[in-house]
Amino acid sequence: MIFKEPISKQAEVLVIGDEVISGLIVDTNSKYLGEQIHALGIGVSRITKVGDDPSIIEQCVTQALQRSRWIILTGGLGITHDDITKSVLIKVFGSELRRDEKVETMLQEVFNKRNREVPESVQSQCEVPDNCQVLYNDAGTAPGFRFEKDGNVLFCLPGVPHEMKHLFEEYISPEMVKHSSQTFSQRILKTTGISEADLWEKVGSITTLQEKATLASLPSHLGVRIRISCLAETKEKGEAVLDEVEQSFVNRIGEYVYGKNEEMLEAVVGRLLTEKSMTLATAESCTGGLIGHRLTQVSGSSQYYKEGFVVYSNNAKVSRLGVDPQVINDHGAVSEPVARLMAEGVCRVTGADIGVSVTGIAGPTGGTENKPVGLTYIAVSDSSGTWCRKFIYTHDRIKNKERVAQTALNFVRLKLQGQLRE
Amino acid sequence: MIFKEPISKQAEVLVIGDEVISGLIVDTNSKYLGEQIHALGIGVSRITKVGDDPSIIEQCVTQALQRSRWIILTGGLGITHDDITKSVLIKVFGSELRRDEKVETMLQEVFNKRNREVPESVQSQCEVPDNCQVLYNDAGTAPGFRFEKDGNVLFCLPGVPHEMKHLFEEYISPEMVKHSSQTFSQRILKTTGISEADLWEKVGSITTLQEKATLASLPSHLGVRIRISCLAETKEKGEAVLDEVEQSFVNRIGEYVYGKNEEMLEAVVGRLLTEKSMTLATAESCTGGLIGHRLTQVSGSSQYYKEGFVVYSNNAKVSRLGVDPQVINDHGAVSEPVARLMAEGVCRVTGADIGVSVTGIAGPTGGTENKPVGLTYIAVSDSSGTWCRKFIYTHDRIKNKERVAQTALNFVRLKLQGQLRE
Repeated sequence: MIFKEPISKQAEVLVIGDEVISGLIVDTNSKYLGEQIHALGIGVSRITKVGDDPSIIEQCVTQALQRSRWIILTGGLGITHDDITKSVLIKVFGSELRRDEKVETMLQEVFNKRNREVPESVQSQCEVPDNCQVLYNDAGTAPGFRFEKDGNVLFCLPGVPHEMKHLFEEYISPEMVKHSSQTFSQRILKTTGISEADLWEKVGSITTLQEKATLASLPSHLGVRIRISCLAETKEKGEAVLDEVEQSFVNRIGEYVYGKNEEMLEAVVGRLLTEKSMTLATAESCTGGLIGHRLTQVSGSSQYYKEGFVVYSNNAKVSRLGVDPQVINDHGAVSEPVARLMAEGVCRVTGADIGVSVTGIAGPTGGTENKPVGLTYIAVSDSSGTWCRKFIYTHDRIKNKERVAQTALNFVRLKLQGQLRE
Repeated sequence: MIFKEPISKQAEVLVIGDEVISGLIVDTNSKYLGEQIHALGIGVSRITKVGDDPSIIEQCVTQALQRSRWIILTGGLGITHDDITKSVLIKVFGSELRRDEKVETMLQEVFNKRNREVPESVQSQCEVPDNCQVLYNDAGTAPGFRFEKDGNVLFCLPGVPHEMKHLFEEYISPEMVKHSSQTFSQRILKTTGISEADLWEKVGSITTLQEKATLASLPSHLGVRIRISCLAETKEKGEAVLDEVEQSFVNRIGEYVYGKNEEMLEAVVGRLLTEKSMTLATAESCTGGLIGHRLTQVSGSSQYYKEGFVVYSNNAKVSRLGVDPQVINDHGAVSEPVARLMAEGVCRVTGADIGVSVTGIAGPTGGTENKPVGLTYIAVSDSSGTWCRKFIYTHDRIKNKERVAQTALNFVRLKLQGQLRE
């Protein structure tokens, strides 16, 4: 949900490739371009994807040139597409082909590094339209092009994501930013542990906030992201507005906000552990290793992530973590007492400062009347005590696992911040 | 890379929403629709994404109706978008609004289940255009619509992915399949452990295969997928062609093919373990729990996945798995002898039939001249012996971890199939 969206829309994106429109590959280029162009304070009016069909590409390019100030076209360049895009552009812009020496030299360098001759099939990359600016590609073999017509600008980029991004950053972003009269600023507050409805109820009236910035709410099973964005004369003024609006949110829902922008929960946990010189160990049943996997996505995690146990079986819970088999008998493996003993056991066995444990029924099978699929206990233990909470999740197996891991990591964060309440 | 693509293109997809074109959310709907429509033997000529702008939506709808036999429009329905799409369609098709009793009853049932009255804001969902077929939505609150003009059909669906999919399967797919003169069949062969270039070199000439089917090659860091597809008069004839082409691939590169279509490597490993009534345990260093996480994505994995250890530290390798500290001293934690002792140790400690271990430097830090970032040893052990191989991966930390986990699972598969060679 977006509460308002005031940006003026002058750009459009055109993605070319049969793989994309037949759903064979996920097109990540258009999301990247939409996001980046938006972040420059220029709105995207439409994103069009078409196959490797010259007449449809020609029609789309011609229409786009008539209505949009900026057109970014990606894909359909290079040998696997027989340079279909280049031939269409030559027609639309009335170009002749010329041989570009710099492209030739760059290609030779690329293949020299691989100890190979430039293959015949790649030679056509050196042929470029004579009435465009060449966007030299340090990240691959196909160069990009910049055409201009009646004051509108068309950029043509290869479809390989890292090459496309490289040329966007090198050539397009610097040019666009010069033509944007206002600066666009945005910040994302990442929350977890509260539903979208409850979150906005706690936030209360947003009328005054909306006068300052645009708000958007993006829910998923791992939490709600709040996007705050605004247009301002300068970057500094924009950031000041964001600071003010962010503070209003933090005052109202601070404990649910774990990070900003691209920050991951596991990185926040890692930062807190590092600051406090503390170590963490994990005891996972239903998540099967996902918590350890997430913790170790962060470079340097070996400094604070001590050890992990994937204790799927009762036997493993007993022999690795010293869980009393009688407690498992009396309460079942998915129970509060077992979760507590697992968290305490993993601290004792590993010597970690904090232990986190999860035990649950991920589904779709394994549930009973008393213990339904999705039932999960999550516990955190340290020298001051042990906290445990019960949840019943209703997603599918894979999402249940993801949600349990997220909640467990959030518990560790709250514990480290002194905000874990009974 | 697609080697040819003969399908006729009669459909187009229109996605509506400011969230989508500003890159705020990843649009998965257009990939789903592209794939599904393609699979019905009908080609998609273009996918267009536009914001919540009535005049641009109207222009797109009008143009699409002039050129395409099938138009699927998704998003911009419901309260968060103020029914912007509905108001545009009413204008384009000259509709009046009427109140639909069935929608009203369905809405009441949805909110009864939640013990709530139908909110005022949702009441507008009961108002539908009078000259369309209503697509009743069991999976949500916003109904879809089917319009017809000059023999072309426009379907309008809500943007929430599971509601969109539900209505597509319920109404659109059955109608489209009736109008497709040929049946489209496809099969994906999933390979791992070989590069795209080496794979096609081993396959050799594909001229005769291409006379029978369309081939596409989709590489990623986890392996190459080969898509075989064809158009035929009947489903049976299509499947027979696919069987024949698949067999040619299996004859040439069989050991690299681990599964078909949506089958995951962890599910294949699980099936093989179940068939042989064998159990598996994991000892993970650089993957941090990812192998255990993947194994437990499969429902029923508790039957064969015995236990896992995340042994990031040297100390953990020694105390959990009985790795000789002298060997770590002599060779380092990332070494073949340690990988072997880890795999053997995890079998001994847990009593599992097969043990798999990984030890490596995921990066970006931690590398040395002799042991660069990406260096990894993967070992598999069972009662007949221990196998170990060395790799040097050159992706980023996250992709390195994914690749190591994929290779480790593939080793277990090869071991179970008796194909793991020295």
